[in-house]
Parts: sequence; structure tokens; C-alpha cells
Amino acid sequence: MTTTEKLTALRRAMARRGLAAYLVLTDDFHASEYVGDYFKAREYLSGFTGSAGTLLVLPSRALLWTDGRYFLQAESQLAGSGIELMRSGEPDVPTLERFLLTELEDGSLLGFDTRTVNTALARRLGNKLRAKHIRFAGDEDLVDALWPDRPPLSAAPVWELGIDYAGEARADKLARVRAAMADEGADAFVVTALDELAWLLDLRGNDVACTPVFLGFLLLTKEDAVLCARAGAVSEEVKAALTADGVRLADYESIYGLVRALPRGTRVLLDGATANYRLTQSVPDGAEALDRPSPIVPMKAVKNAVEQENFRRAHLADGIALTRFLRWLKCDAVREGATERSAAAKLEEYRRESADYLEPSFDPILAYGPHGAIVHYEATAETDVPLEARGLLLADTGGHYRTGTTDVTRTVALGPVTEEEKRACTLVLRGHLALAAARFRAGVTGENLDILARGPLWDEGLDYNHGTGHGVGYLLSVHEGPQRIHWNITSNARHTALEPGMIFSDEPGLYLAGKFGVRLENLLLVREAETNAYGRFLSLEPLTLAPFDRDTIDPSLLSGRELAQLNAYHARVYEALAPHLDAETRVWLRGVTAPLGK
Amino acid sequence: MTTTEKLTALRRAMARRGLAAYLVLTDDFHASEYVGDYFKAREYLSGFTGSAGTLLVLPSRALLWTDGRYFLQAESQLAGSGIELMRSGEPDVPTLERFLLTELEDGSLLGFDTRTVNTALARRLGNKLRAKHIRFAGDEDLVDALWPDRPPLSAAPVWELGIDYAGEARADKLARVRAAMADEGADAFVVTALDELAWLLDLRGNDVACTPVFLGFLLLTKEDAVLCARAGAVSEEVKAALTADGVRLADYESIYGLVRALPRGTRVLLDGATANYRLTQSVPDGAEALDRPSPIVPMKAVKNAVEQENFRRAHLADGIALTRFLRWLKCDAVREGATERSAAAKLEEYRRESADYLEPSFDPILAYGPHGAIVHYEATAETDVPLEARGLLLADTGGHYRTGTTDVTRTVALGPVTEEEKRACTLVLRGHLALAAARFRAGVTGENLDILARGPLWDEGLDYNHGTGHGVGYLLSVHEGPQRIHWNITSNARHTALEPGMIFSDEPGLYLAGKFGVRLENLLLVREAETNAYGRFLSLEPLTLAPFDRDTIDPSLLSGRELAQLNAYHARVYEALAPHLDAETRVWLRGVTAPLGK
Repeated sequence: MTTTEKLTALRRAMARRGLAAYLVLTDDFHASEYVGDYFKAREYLSGFTGSAGTLLVLPSRALLWTDGRYFLQAESQLAGSGIELMRSGEPDVPTLERFLLTELEDGSLLGFDTRTVNTALARRLGNKLRAKHIRFAGDEDLVDALWPDRPPLSAAPVWELGIDYAGEARADKLARVRAAMADEGADAFVVTALDELAWLLDLRGNDVACTPVFLGFLLLTKEDAVLCARAGAVSEEVKAALTADGVRLADYESIYGLVRALPRGTRVLLDGATANYRLTQSVPDGAEALDRPSPIVPMKAVKNAVEQENFRRAHLADGIALTRFLRWLKCDAVREGATERSAAAKLEEYRRESADYLEPSFDPILAYGPHGAIVHYEATAETDVPLEARGLLLADTGGHYRTGTTDVTRTVALGPVTEEEKRACTLVLRGHLALAAARFRAGVTGENLDILARGPLWDEGLDYNHGTGHGVGYLLSVHEGPQRIHWNITSNARHTALEPGMIFSDEPGLYLAGKFGVRLENLLLVREAETNAYGRFLSLEPLTLAPFDRDTIDPSLLSGRELAQLNAYHARVYEALAPHLDAETRVWLRGVTAPLGK
Repeated sequence: MTTTEKLTALRRAMARRGLAAYLVLTDDFHASEYVGDYFKAREYLSGFTGSAGTLLVLPSRALLWTDGRYFLQAESQLAGSGIELMRSGEPDVPTLERFLLTELEDGSLLGFDTRTVNTALARRLGNKLRAKHIRFAGDEDLVDALWPDRPPLSAAPVWELGIDYAGEARADKLARVRAAMADEGADAFVVTALDELAWLLDLRGNDVACTPVFLGFLLLTKEDAVLCARAGAVSEEVKAALTADGVRLADYESIYGLVRALPRGTRVLLDGATANYRLTQSVPDGAEALDRPSPIVPMKAVKNAVEQENFRRAHLADGIALTRFLRWLKCDAVREGATERSAAAKLEEYRRESADYLEPSFDPILAYGPHGAIVHYEATAETDVPLEARGLLLADTGGHYRTGTTDVTRTVALGPVTEEEKRACTLVLRGHLALAAARFRAGVTGENLDILARGPLWDEGLDYNHGTGHGVGYLLSVHEGPQRIHWNITSNARHTALEPGMIFSDEPGLYLAGKFGVRLENLLLVREAETNAYGRFLSLEPLTLAPFDRDTIDPSLLSGRELAQLNAYHARVYEALAPHLDAETRVWLRGVTAPLGK
């Protein structure tokens, strides 16, 4: 079917139901960052493959909203489809809400699959549209009927991580969460975010790209726990282990019925940021939905001693692969005719040599020259370029290991670099080092720390248009909260103090459109430093073990303190990795980690 | 009368009114930082003179709550009075609310003068006491009748600042505030904070120590403006000027009646942080009190071009006085037998030589040796000590000039200093310099910047237990908001982005109890730096002009950037002040501002 035929079929279905408009969104049923193929209805209908976009279908028009990252891509993919591109954030482009309020008639029905919208978003939309008495209707996935070859909803095998990796027994986690429910006065808690579910039940799966989680919901009460998972995904062995901890199994789709059947007076905890709107609407009259931050989020963010030690092991393995890759990049890649894509494959090959390695933790970003200035660049067959013996290659990659998750960025000189490139790399390095060196009072948040990473750039009237750091899950999502490193203090955000055991990325950057991009990233672990008469102090341990490219650094721009910190880090990298490297790589690493002086 | 006799008389008055308890608080009717003598009822009753304290009188007990700054002083001043000292914050000491809930019987009446409590505080107290049905009662100042020689309520002459100093006409300010009221949907606005009132009406007075404001309230509506001021305080000339701008006069106490007489349906803006509780209670049924941040606060915080230029002039005059004082301290003070108090008088003498000087902007803190470690130290006849030719003197002082307000701290070596003292001074200087050098994106708040000043101390496991910076009024309160420099992000605080024209202090410190204290403080003016493709950047201009004592600085602890910044600042200080100094002071200043090297 062509896009036009698909839209015609959808409009027939809309007309039968009296819908004035139909929305097709990008989320799965769990507000996941990455989604399985089953959920790519917007892509199927419109042809636009970007990771963010909302399609609105009206009887005689269709429009797609997306953000600045995807304007060029959407233009080309929507060409000829008749779908109008709405460039979010451009001055004359109305928001979706504004557009709906203008275009729809008073009292119209707006259809969408309420499972693909989180509660907070649906409520905001509903509140805005109330001015024109526009109601939500349908509650049906109208795309399903006109998508004959829709990929099946995934049901990959679910597996147990085990106490040696998780460091805390499932029963103990369940007890902690139930205690938190009691503190909130909640009788029931619907766990909806897939990484929270996987953490709590000590299970992993393979239903979502780059995130080893499985499709499921958990309905937790004081006495009972029902896991609604895909039929066939849970083996008898896993089922038995769950049963032993008081967790029963039910069908994936049965969660809505279970919530609807909750007795009168039940207080049901649902985190509106991730709970889909159909779930919230399923809370019956007489029961009360408590829209509160999930108590699992802060628990999951603080890694226990076993997880911390494992993370160090994961970073050792990752550092070995990365160092071999960096040597290859600097010495062989250009000669061998490598491209952005083949270089990514090479790194993946090195990572696969670790027995603990499972899969990439996100789609690798290998961006050569001007591609480095595109923050979310992902090389495709069309954009892939050969690496040449000059300029900068930005490599932002990561892996999932049984022992933890990595996320690391290095910017590498493939040959001579300009003064401008070197200066940019050194400024970004100064910011990276300043954050990594921070010692701070307990209670400090990412909003307090951010200026350390940006300061050297701000001093020069430069900046990067992304956060400085994000939390990292343990074999879960490579991006997790609640901590974040960004200066922006919005009054309604949840400000999260950094706690010992939290991990976050330290990744300042600088992007010169059409020229090059720089980003340098290590993961840092928050640790106790000391408690004295002045207070309790925390410090940061770099987990990532890989050299920064000396060829990109101008030592004359570094202070004595910065040089000492860089040299100490490089000495640690060498000491940790050397015993595990082949002779050639070891000799190379010794050279590139030798102390730098002015 | 003795304290016992006063309390007995108060208890008789309480009994006649059926009060189970009576509270005597520290505020005036405007939540001012400093209060006039008329308002010192708690001091009159208890003998305790600290700037913070709450007296609770019960039929058979009396208790006084105060904080850690005043434990020693309160112990000594309450000795023999029979009043029990409640040390706020100590582990076993209940808060006032907790104590009232425990001690008072269900349904009791709690009396206090509701004019001396701001609305926010009264509401919090009322909400807590509701659990035991404790009600507020009396609405009378019971102390007045038993205070025969009470100082009169001040009515010092009110004077106009004038457009050459204020830079904006009264009529224009009134128009801006009325526009803000319209934005808030308010029909009336009761201006209650004395500095807001003085700013808005371009008037100054002398009813409060260290703050050149006058007692008054303004009831502002779209068409009308009634200034309720002390009879006799406003001359015919000032009255005529006010009338020309549509401001009528009424008696100070008439504000409550005016609010009570507001027509039904009036929406009355009252900032609960400063509006006293009786005012809020005066809003009649049928009218609506809007408890919102006063729109004057952000307007007043952003100094216009005339105010900025005047502030520079005030700091030039202050720098001249301060430099002469510093030369005297370093060269003559010990030989002349100076003490903390006589040194303060000497500085005041130098400041008085400026024609624009009016009065100190706060009680001067001159703290020698171990006194420097007491953050709020104020030398009294009992504590005053002679200065000796060794160790550190901390001098935190400021002045009100017609051209603006100053607040400056220097820590001076009076002779040899220990390595520990020098190291402490240098660490604090590094923090001070880092904040002063900051360039940052528009939108950044004090919470983002604070770590720049604390970082060098935090790196060593040190800290100071006070904010890094506060806003400064123009010939108003030396402490004003809404901006503040402190890392603590509490979710309910108002986070204020720094804007060009705002002024704040940069005053890190370090305090070693029993040994010495260090604090270094300049005022900084926020300025536009540049707007480019990366965003809009702001920077800071130091307003304060006075040398940092080279004898307290260890240059080997400073980076090249820090040394360059210090030397550039000192060169600027010399260049600005030299033309205005006598030959002796000029030669001295040239020496102490000469470039420092490693």
C-alpha cells in the first residue's frame, strides 16, 4: 500500500467512528526510550523513521510534527506523501495543541491509542482541548487493521540476572518497594516502566532494541504480585523462581482488567510520567489513582556494592576493547579503507570478545569531520564516508555487559588537526576534567555541578545544546534518571541530590556546524569522600578506562592542576588495562598515556 | 520594673482575655530585617537583645527560642529572669509549634500582635495548631500597656531621592507596577515591605536602623494610590510631589480600615512573605486575597543605567575611604593602640568625608583573631580587644551613599600570619575570584554559580555555613532578593535567574573556631557580555574597589589564570583610586597593588 492508500483506509475507519482527527504517536505502551518494531505505526503510515514525531490525520489533511534534529530527514522521507511537515519550534509553526484548538470544531472527537501516550501528556492535552470541548475517543489502534504485515509484538525469552550480578534479592527489592508504597499510603502500585520492572524482578529480556528488557506490567499489592507478561516469554524455570517470591503470572494485556477490578477504596500508585493513559483510566470509580514519582526510580539509581564492583569489571572489559579500537583507528583504519560504519563494526567485534558482552547499549555514533557536528548522527548507507588521514572522528558508543552498561565518547585525530580543532578539544577536555574532579557537599544536585563542565566553554562564549550528564542503568536503559547534570532549573522539575552509588555521564561537547564536533565522555561513580566538622563530602570515581587522544590536546591551555589530573587518569588507565592487552597494544597505550607537560 | 514584674503584669492581661499563652516576636509591622526601637518589645520584656528570638509566656512559665548565633548571649542576658532558654536546632529542643501542640490544651487561645507576624508564618503556625483546635486571639499588643517609657513609633522626615539618583520617575514606576497588577489580575495591591515602598515612591526616611526607609503602607489600585504614613513625617513639599503623581496621604494605622473597606469582588494582591497577618485578615469577605510574590521585588533588583552608574560612584567613594583605612590598619593602627571598636570608628570617619555618605548600611563587623570565626560578631564594650601586630583582622562593613549602597569585606594581616592562616586566605580568595570571573548563559541562577566560590574549599573538605551572596538595594536594605547565591535547591524556593543590572555580593569565607576567620567580599554587577549562535552570555563587573591584602596570599597556590585576574583587578583598583588619594596613601596603594608573581 502507498502512504495515500494507507491514509485513505485510516480515514474510512475514522469516519465510521465519527472521529474528527486521529493521532499516531511514537511511544510503546511503557514510555520506553527505544521501542520494538511492533510499535512503529507512525513510521509505517508516514514513511518517516526518526525517533521522534507525531502524525495527525484529518479527513482532508495529514501533518507530522518533529523537532530540529529531523527536519532534513523528514523533508526527504515525506516527499510525495502529501503529509505536511510541521517543524516544531520554528516561529510560525503552531504546536499540536494549538493546531487542534484552531482546526477542530467545538465538541469534536479526537482518536488515538491511549496506550501509546503517558498519563502526564494525555492530561496536559486534555486540559488544553477542554476549552473547545474536544474529547478523546476510540481507544482503539486503528492502524492495526490496515497493517497486514505488522511485526508481531515481541515475546523474547525472559532470563534471570541472578544475585551475583544484581547484588540484592528479588524478595528484598519487593519488600523495599512495598515499604515505600506504605509510606505513600498506596494499597497497590502498577509498575509500568520496563527498566523498573526488570530491576525489581531481577529479570532481563530482549523485546526492545538496545535495552535488554521485556514487555510486562506488574500489579503489586501488600500481599500479592501479578506479572502481566507476554505468553511464552517466561520459562517454567523463571516462573518457578517468581512463584517462590510470591509473584504470579498473567497475560500481558490483562493488566487493564486487573486494574479495573481493584476494589473500591484502593489507593493505586501510578507514575504519570510512564504509566500509559489507558492504565490510569482503568482505575475504577471509587478507587483513587495516586500520580506520584515511582519509588523504584531512586532505588534503581543507587547501585549497591555488588553492582558497583561489577560496573568496574564491565568498564575494564570495555576499556580493553576500546583501547584496541583506538590503536586500530590511529594506526590502521585509514590505510585499511575504513568508513564510519565499518569502524563501528570493528569496535563491536572487539567488544564481542568479552564473555560478558551482550549488545550495544545504543546505536553507535561514529561521526567523521562535519558529521561530528550533528549531535544525533547515525551513519547510514547513504551518509557513510571513508575515514581520511586528517581531522577528527567522534566516537560515542557503549555496550551492555552482564556486569553493567558502558557509554563512552572519545574524539580522535586521524591525522593533522587544525588549531581550531585542537583548541576546541582542549576546552571540552578542561570542562570534562573539572566535573570529574569535583568534591561536593551531600545534597548537591546536577544543577549545581553543571557549570564545572560548561565553564571553560562559557568563558569563551561557547556552549553545547545538550545536557552534560545522565544516569546509566545496570544492564537496563543507558539513559536513566532521576539524576541529571544540567544547569537549567525549572520550578516543576524534580531536583535530585547526588548520592553515593549513583552513576552519571560527564560529556561536554562543542559542535561547529559544517566543520567538526567534539565530545568527551566518561562515566563517573558518586562515592563517599569524608565527613568532618564542615559536613559530608562526596567525590567522583571515573569508571571509564580509555585514553584521551594526546594529538587533540594543547597542553599550553591546561593549568598545572588540569595536567596533573589528566596524567593521573592516564596512569590509572595504563595500570588497569596493561595486564590484559597484547604486547603491541600495550606498547601503544604506554606511549599515548605518558605524562603530558607544558 | 523587673522582668518578673513585667511578666506578672502581662499574665494579668492574658488572664483577663482568657489567653492560654502569649507570643512576643521580633518583627516590626513590615517584616523588616532591622526594626525601630518601638518594636523591641521582646527585648524590653526579656532583656535579651539578639536580633532573632521569640518569647512565649504561659501562666506559670516563660520560654525564649533563639538560634545558635545567640546561645551564649541569651544565657547571660536571661540569667536570673526565670525565662527558660530554648536552643533552636539542638536535638532535644522542640520547635515552638511542637511545644505549643504539646503544652496547650485543646481549644486554647494563643495571643499575639498579628501585625508583627508575616502572613506566611502565621498560616503555617495556624495550620499546625489546628490539630488541637488552638485559635489565634486578642489581636492586641498587650505589652504596650505595661511599657511606660516605650520609645515612640518613629516619624522621621521623609525625603525625595530624585530622578538623578533613582533614574526612573515615580509615575513611571507606578505605571509599571499597575501593569504588573493587571497581569496578575489584581484590582488592588497593598505594598507592605518598607524597601519596596521607598523604591516605588522614590522616597527615603530614617525610621529603621541601617535602612533609610520610612514607616508606611501603600494601597494601590488602578486609579488610586493611598500612602498610609506617620503623621508629620511627610512635608508639604513631598506631599505636593506625591499629589502630582496621584498619591494621596492617609494615617499610618488607617491601612487596615482601608483594606477592610475594599468593595466586594476586589482581588487584592498581598505578598505573604512580608504582609503582616492583620493586613491579610483585613481583606473583607467577598474580596479575594491573592498571595503572590510582590512584582516590585524583581523590578527593584534590576538597577537601571543611572543607578548602575551611581553605584560605581558610591564604590569609588567607598574605595577611597576603605583604602585610607587599610593603609592606617597596616601601618598605624597597632602603634596607635586601636581596638576593634575604635578601628570601626576610624573607618566611619573616613567614609564621612564623602559628601554623598549617609550612614552605615549595617552594623560593622571588625573581628580580630578568634573573633573572626564568629560569623555575626559585633564588638561590644565587653568583647572589644586591642589590635596586635600579628594575625588576621576581618572587616565586613558597608555604607549608604546617596549614590548607592556598599558592602565589602577584607581580611587583613596585622603582622606575621601562620601558614594555616595564609592558606585559608588564599583558598577563600580562589573561590572569590572564580565567581567574579564567571561568564554564563542568561537563565543561570545563583544555585548554578555557587560551586565556583565553594569549589576550592570543597576540594579540601572545607566549607562556610552561610550563603555566598545576596542582592543589595539602592540606598535601601543591604540584603535584598530575589537573587541569591547558594547551592541549596529547595523545591519550593523561587529560583531567580540573574539579569543584567542585578547586583550581588561574592563573599566566601572560612572560619576556624577559636583561631581566626576569613571572608573576602566584593559586590558584582551583572552585565551583558555577548549574544552569539551559542546563546546570550552575561558577565560580572566588580564594583568594589579596594586591595586584597598581599600579605595573606600564597601565590604558589594560585593558578596562572587566578594570578592574572588578581593582578588585573588590583591594577584597576589603583587606576580608579589613585587620582583621588593623598600622596602617602597613593604610594602605599601602588605598592600593595603591584603585580604578584609565583
